[in-house]
Amino acid sequence: MKITFNDIVAKSQTLSKKVLSVAVAQDEAVIEAVAEAKKKGICDAILVGDEAKIKEIAAGMGVDISQFEIINEPDVIQASLTAVKLCHDGKADMYMKGLLETKDFLRSVLDKEVGLRTGGVLSHVCVFDIPGVEKLLFFTDVAFMTYPTLEDKVNIIKNTIPVCNACGIENPKVAPLAAVEVVNPKMPVCVEADELTKMNERGEITGCIVDGPLSLDLAIDPEAAKHKHIEGRKIQGDADILLFPDIHAGNLVYKAIVHTTKVENGCILTGTKVPVILTSRSDTFETKVNSIALAAVVAHEIKKANA
Amino acid sequence: MKITFNDIVAKSQTLSKKVLSVAVAQDEAVIEAVAEAKKKGICDAILVGDEAKIKEIAAGMGVDISQFEIINEPDVIQASLTAVKLCHDGKADMYMKGLLETKDFLRSVLDKEVGLRTGGVLSHVCVFDIPGVEKLLFFTDVAFMTYPTLEDKVNIIKNTIPVCNACGIENPKVAPLAAVEVVNPKMPVCVEADELTKMNERGEITGCIVDGPLSLDLAIDPEAAKHKHIEGRKIQGDADILLFPDIHAGNLVYKAIVHTTKVENGCILTGTKVPVILTSRSDTFETKVNSIALAAVVAHEIKKANA
Repeated sequence: MKITFNDIVAKSQTLSKKVLSVAVAQDEAVIEAVAEAKKKGICDAILVGDEAKIKEIAAGMGVDISQFEIINEPDVIQASLTAVKLCHDGKADMYMKGLLETKDFLRSVLDKEVGLRTGGVLSHVCVFDIPGVEKLLFFTDVAFMTYPTLEDKVNIIKNTIPVCNACGIENPKVAPLAAVEVVNPKMPVCVEADELTKMNERGEITGCIVDGPLSLDLAIDPEAAKHKHIEGRKIQGDADILLFPDIHAGNLVYKAIVHTTKVENGCILTGTKVPVILTSRSDTFETKVNSIALAAVVAHEIKKANA
Repeated sequence: MKITFNDIVAKSQTLSKKVLSVAVAQDEAVIEAVAEAKKKGICDAILVGDEAKIKEIAAGMGVDISQFEIINEPDVIQASLTAVKLCHDGKADMYMKGLLETKDFLRSVLDKEVGLRTGGVLSHVCVFDIPGVEKLLFFTDVAFMTYPTLEDKVNIIKNTIPVCNACGIENPKVAPLAAVEVVNPKMPVCVEADELTKMNERGEITGCIVDGPLSLDLAIDPEAAKHKHIEGRKIQGDADILLFPDIHAGNLVYKAIVHTTKVENGCILTGTKVPVILTSRSDTFETKVNSIALAAVVAHEIKKANA
């Protein structure tokens, strides 16, 4: 059975209530998504920002703001540091971007004193429910890491496995993607994909099954895998994690799917102490709510692992 | 009005009848597509290959083979050289792959004596009619050139312009794609996209309007362009040619669209003396017929340019 965002929302509702900390919360779209997440029982939230503006926006939208704790901090940079510190100190379980520049938001995430560094690399995962594709797909990295090295790719995989686990997928299948499914020595992407596969076989990457290089059809379409006779391969159109060669390939595929297909998706930044929600202005309301639900189940998974 | 494959087929029917030369024609899927193209009045065909096998396959399919000229050449390599020579000598106007390995087929295309070299680089273009996208899109290169240099990209654009012209699109808009629409000096793809744009402005690339780097949404979605306020850019979600950074990005996007969306498409290899049809086993019947129609109108365009 395919896992859907409904399942992820349902799981988040069964967990001990998680707390979302929002940096610079005076943003209508963000308040709308957070209010919906609260209404659905996905999480509680602490809104850090300009209290007067937050209340004015909420009133204009007919949102009962009394259900949220508000920390008044009109200065944008200071608000982000206050909000991220709540996560750093264990008073909140996930961190969300409000009305500030991405670079300023990331600066708070990476702050050495109150930020969310763990010593590992940060990476982005976008979870897709695509009609006609039999499994939930975990795209990485389509938004954050630009040109990952082999070592970065190992760490991206390690960051993404707990996200799969949180969504109920144990031992996920990882497809390092390329244009072709053979190891062409003239294509560094293929050579690295092969190396990742061997590292997995040697036990250097655990908790997953890596099989690459793979073309996209062989990674996500069991019929294509059957048609092309790739017996002996560990992935037969049933990949969970799609590992992209670089940000251009990842981002272009991500946008191609979002702009040509009716999909449900949610995205988070991982490799941090708590999951980080970095949705963009162009993301839909549904994507924002899905991202909060995804962050909630991942926050639970991280706590479980650290317990 | 969006141009469709119906328009391309209709145009091919109005032209002086073009002749298709098929290398190693004893292939059921190829004969089926060629018979359909003949029936629709897109082209005539010369089938080069094992005559007995060709006749047996046609009989099994109920195709009247007497409508085609057959040249009997049971040897695969020899058949490809005979078939490509027909194009080289001007007796045929387009060249199509039958039942032989791609590498052997390409060897005939590149043959110094009887092949189709023009001195320029070869590149592949895949033409897409995607529901919801307002224009016909020309993807390049998703299948042939692996890691194009800046100079290669100039030549890919030059190869693709006549294909647009043949489809009724004058002065096409070319979007060199990337993950972002700004020139990030840490991303060589963006720097090259910017350089292509400047070469176009300086008149070093003519017959088109180049504007890059562009993210995919800003290239193909006018609403996204409006939403993100990219006034002053020459492309506002209305690109014709999508120029991919490398074969991985191109091929992954191509397969993402084919496997998640209902599309019509057709592909040819360009930069050759006549258009080359290199469809794969996994392409549908419709894609094969579309590719022949595309080749027919491009063959006409090439003849017109050389006249």
